[in-house]
Amino acid sequence: MARPDLLTDDELAAALEGLAGWQVEAGKLRREFHFADFSAAFGFMAASATVAEKLDHHPEWSNVYSTVVVELTTHDAGGLTELDVQLARRMSELAGSVAK
Amino acid sequence: MARPDLLTDDELAAALEGLAGWQVEAGKLRREFHFADFSAAFGFMAASATVAEKLDHHPEWSNVYSTVVVELTTHDAGGLTELDVQLARRMSELAGSVAK
Amino acid sequence: MARPDLLTDDELAAALEGLAGWQVEAGKLRREFHFADFSAAFGFMAASATVAEKLDHHPEWSNVYSTVVVELTTHDAGGLTELDVQLARRMSELAGSVAK
Amino acid sequence: MARPDLLTDDELAAALEGLAGWQVEAGKLRREFHFADFSAAFGFMAASATVAEKLDHHPEWSNVYSTVVVELTTHDAGGLTELDVQLARRMSELAGSVAK
Repeated sequence: MARPDLLTDDELAAALEGLAGWQVEAGKLRREFHFADFSAAFGFMAASATVAEKLDHHPEWSNVYSTVVVELTTHDAGGLTELDVQLARRMSELAGSVAK
Repeated sequence: MARPDLLTDDELAAALEGLAGWQVEAGKLRREFHFADFSAAFGFMAASATVAEKLDHHPEWSNVYSTVVVELTTHDAGGLTELDVQLARRMSELAGSVAK
Repeated sequence: MARPDLLTDDELAAALEGLAGWQVEAGKLRREFHFADFSAAFGFMAASATVAEKLDHHPEWSNVYSTVVVELTTHDAGGLTELDVQLARRMSELAGSVAK
Repeated sequence: MARPDLLTDDELAAALEGLAGWQVEAGKLRREFHFADFSAAFGFMAASATVAEKLDHHPEWSNVYSTVVVELTTHDAGGLTELDVQLARRMSELAGSVAK
């Protein structure tokens, strides 16, 4: 499927307003999630993994115990696109009620 | 490690009071969990899987889309024990905020 | 997306030749997977969950310790379709080297 | 439970002989795993997550598509212990047949 275009500055600014906790760092969309413990953190990762595979758009992420750090970018496009915003939104929803 | 003793009827009744949504059916502790979608359901399963392995006590469970049905029993003891109550409690906590 | 048509008897027979371990039972494609332990079994489930979500086609499956029983059908079509064959094939690949 | 003692240099050298692909970098036990795709990589992570929770010893790990980078250390002990060796060994086994 065709990859989406890079977001303009205005589009990105608008998207960030709806993405609490996410910010742009070094050109990537980044959020640090904190959970009650490792089990909750990993459950969030498993839920997110199914979404990432469905979107065919995968995070760069790391986990240490109850913390999950997520960085998103669209390599094919060389920056941030609607795909990153979609994945960020779904990850926030999945973490929503369990993130501290 | 030694497996716990069977719960007495009184102990079981007391435990059930603290386990909303769980009931005893055919000698097993059973609960049906409903989630927003498959991703949320599977995230719950992944979180629960880590807990089950830690307790060295594993559920009999099935999943169809957003529903997860869990049945617990302690085979070594031939019935319900404190292990089942512990696992049920942790699964309820993990599902807590995401179950509908 | 449009759901695929039901497989004809000939198409189903041809597909089953390439699906070692799977058989049709009560109109569903069914396979029982056996792994070394619970951790391996659950790893297989997590890998399969990402594939199922990508295909937007989800298994009816159950797990008890190291065993995973999978049943596939396409409810929208009222029987078996190419989607079931695709998911079965991918699950066999994912289990391939770890299933006993 | 009491945390194990730091491994001596000799014990660590002996352990590394049995841990193909692992090396010590900046005081941590490190291995980069490569899989066929994201689904296989995440399945490995899910299997490993259950083991980590059971050992009550969790990895520092990151994932990008089909690659999983794992770093192990025992923070309580200020270095490498038998726990790290155990987790490394189990992760290698779980990846064994699927890692390229």
